[in-house]
Amino acid sequence: MKKFVAELIGTFMLVFFGTGAVVFGNGVNGVGHLGIALAFGLSIVAAAYSIGTISGAHLNPAVSIAMFVNKRLDAKNLGIYILAQLAGALLGSATLYFFLLNAGVEVTSLGENSFSQVNAFGAFLFELIVSFIFILVIVTVTSATKGNGKIAGLVIGLTLALLILVGLNVTGLSVNPARSLAPALFIGGAALKQVWVFILAPIAGGVLAALVGKHLLGTEEA
Amino acid sequence: MKKFVAELIGTFMLVFFGTGAVVFGNGVNGVGHLGIALAFGLSIVAAAYSIGTISGAHLNPAVSIAMFVNKRLDAKNLGIYILAQLAGALLGSATLYFFLLNAGVEVTSLGENSFSQVNAFGAFLFELIVSFIFILVIVTVTSATKGNGKIAGLVIGLTLALLILVGLNVTGLSVNPARSLAPALFIGGAALKQVWVFILAPIAGGVLAALVGKHLLGTEEA
Amino acid sequence: MKKFVAELIGTFMLVFFGTGAVVFGNGVNGVGHLGIALAFGLSIVAAAYSIGTISGAHLNPAVSIAMFVNKRLDAKNLGIYILAQLAGALLGSATLYFFLLNAGVEVTSLGENSFSQVNAFGAFLFELIVSFIFILVIVTVTSATKGNGKIAGLVIGLTLALLILVGLNVTGLSVNPARSLAPALFIGGAALKQVWVFILAPIAGGVLAALVGKHLLGTEEA
Amino acid sequence: MKKFVAELIGTFMLVFFGTGAVVFGNGVNGVGHLGIALAFGLSIVAAAYSIGTISGAHLNPAVSIAMFVNKRLDAKNLGIYILAQLAGALLGSATLYFFLLNAGVEVTSLGENSFSQVNAFGAFLFELIVSFIFILVIVTVTSATKGNGKIAGLVIGLTLALLILVGLNVTGLSVNPARSLAPALFIGGAALKQVWVFILAPIAGGVLAALVGKHLLGTEEA
Repeated sequence: MKKFVAELIGTFMLVFFGTGAVVFGNGVNGVGHLGIALAFGLSIVAAAYSIGTISGAHLNPAVSIAMFVNKRLDAKNLGIYILAQLAGALLGSATLYFFLLNAGVEVTSLGENSFSQVNAFGAFLFELIVSFIFILVIVTVTSATKGNGKIAGLVIGLTLALLILVGLNVTGLSVNPARSLAPALFIGGAALKQVWVFILAPIAGGVLAALVGKHLLGTEEA
Repeated sequence: MKKFVAELIGTFMLVFFGTGAVVFGNGVNGVGHLGIALAFGLSIVAAAYSIGTISGAHLNPAVSIAMFVNKRLDAKNLGIYILAQLAGALLGSATLYFFLLNAGVEVTSLGENSFSQVNAFGAFLFELIVSFIFILVIVTVTSATKGNGKIAGLVIGLTLALLILVGLNVTGLSVNPARSLAPALFIGGAALKQVWVFILAPIAGGVLAALVGKHLLGTEEA
Repeated sequence: MKKFVAELIGTFMLVFFGTGAVVFGNGVNGVGHLGIALAFGLSIVAAAYSIGTISGAHLNPAVSIAMFVNKRLDAKNLGIYILAQLAGALLGSATLYFFLLNAGVEVTSLGENSFSQVNAFGAFLFELIVSFIFILVIVTVTSATKGNGKIAGLVIGLTLALLILVGLNVTGLSVNPARSLAPALFIGGAALKQVWVFILAPIAGGVLAALVGKHLLGTEEA
Repeated sequence: MKKFVAELIGTFMLVFFGTGAVVFGNGVNGVGHLGIALAFGLSIVAAAYSIGTISGAHLNPAVSIAMFVNKRLDAKNLGIYILAQLAGALLGSATLYFFLLNAGVEVTSLGENSFSQVNAFGAFLFELIVSFIFILVIVTVTSATKGNGKIAGLVIGLTLALLILVGLNVTGLSVNPARSLAPALFIGGAALKQVWVFILAPIAGGVLAALVGKHLLGTEEA
């Protein structure tokens, strides 16, 4: 139960602060492309060093599935984590929605992911590659024997910031089904039609990262 | 007495450098939204690794009250800390005022907090949420058993930077009664009328964070 | 073989994310000069804390040659590393190319290095100096006795970001033959004619750094 | 002799990269205010984790004088360090000058410090305050008993970046006599007439920081 609450708070932080910086920060012309990247990345830092002490701060179903593949999480906890992540992400988007209404803004965007220049295959492949790298960093830097626990939260957060620097204009950069699903449910339209890409590609990338981490990098060795 | 001087210098640093970057840096069109966020955040880094060795670098009455709630600070020291923080913040704003006068600038802003788009309820709730998260990170990362002492100053500073990325356009982002009160006393107007929000919400958020830290995250366990 | 795959993935990350931020991020008017600098720097962070656990994350033939000079890498592994780096860099540029085609963009740039204001001598000397400093930081911070292993990846990444802040407008800032060769082979023109500078100068700077590290800083002492 | 060479290389790095980012980066409209701040700050990171292993990477006569006041440096080494810092700074400005000539640019600025809005008293007081804080962070984070050696270079670099965020528009932000003297000797004019401020104020601030560090923060306790 503590882990459920911890993951819920943590995923709330990621969505409320990450997409909140996009929405309240006036996008790339306000807080800037780099500001958006750092907001998402530093949300992970803040979550890792607070609720991460209880749940590990996955904040992302694709990460939890990768941890399950490598037997760091059992099936029951996998379910708990994913439910908490979805609930936290929805709460994050809903809270953002509330503040926009309170400010008298007509809500047309909540920092949802979508793609228009690349096609669905390109978007899927792009999200697959960046999710693979993102989760490869995660499984390695949190590995009991290969990891670097004290600074793991910083490394993971900076890696997410990096990916947003590269991919914001391609897909909005998701790597996280919960982070994409929540705003898509509120906004609908293209974000909702395309959300399958942001659910399936991160999970596929995460499973691949778990396997490469285990067999190439030895992340699960005792 | 050493702790008084240490907190005074530290809170001076936070206000003089944080609001100083706003005032001397030409705001979001000069040093930029991200520059303002990092100036506040890095002020905490500088304070944590200097005067923080003596006082812990709370720099913020809401943080000291949270520490008091969790019995890391006794009532006498709580009073000393808050007085030092108020004195340091006032000195920071006054010094900024002096340099603006010296530069021949008519002083109309000292980086004060205020809100105009959201209403008082929205501002209060926003500051409550961000203060809760901010101080939850603080009580965890400085916890004797759950913490990460060597990099705590970095983590706390980066978290404050994150919150400013999200909230600068909403409330100016306070999370700190001393940081808000000092410029409001010099500037008056809306900043002074609204300052109760920036006093009460961070304290409420901090008390909540202390309790959640203790009971959910086990921050006070031996 | 694991080291080959690790270096290949790592150099792919450096080129795909570093030059990808330039190409997808709309350059200095989009993601910004600082965004480009941090994308390259954080690519090293991501690689160091993932595949770096296997190969050390050189990602750069000039680094591997410096390690060979100081006997941290034998001749056979030097060959394996350089081949892997070239393969990874080519794969990075090719993948970027694919996504640009998929997005319907006519490919005229892949973040290649070139110089037009300074002449070849100036460019060579500039790349020699920055490569010397870059690789001096690397051989020191990864030294068994003088180093700082846990944060080495962060320090090296931030140093690369620094060099790009200084040199982006001078040579595009390479310090890395593999990073320069791959886009030059796709784009041709000035980038390909000038690529010898970005191959020879980093190697010369790296050899010099290995020697200065060993004899001045004692990086190879037991 | 090794320390002389180490400090010379380190101060070269600070001046060549810090002022180089200003000059080659097109100032606040190019690399940006934050980019300039990070270039100076990250120069310290790069120097600290390379030549700092030999000399401690003072890079600044005001820092060396503070270390001398607190008996961490003897008189002979103080002289060696200051000479090396001046030589390194001059070499940094001269190298920058060379590359500008090579690029066909008429050299009118080398990133020199000056003030025009505040008067000399304001500039002196400003540099005194920021130098005091800067060197207070340095003497604390490098203290044998109170310090945090592994991340000291990061903390000091981020603190310098912070100060430039606040003071770039006030005095250009020096805190370092060597960093100010070198470009002033090449450029002359106001920079040279005002350079006494950037020599005396950092030294006064540094001596004050050494004393406050010792007596308030206990930085020299065994």
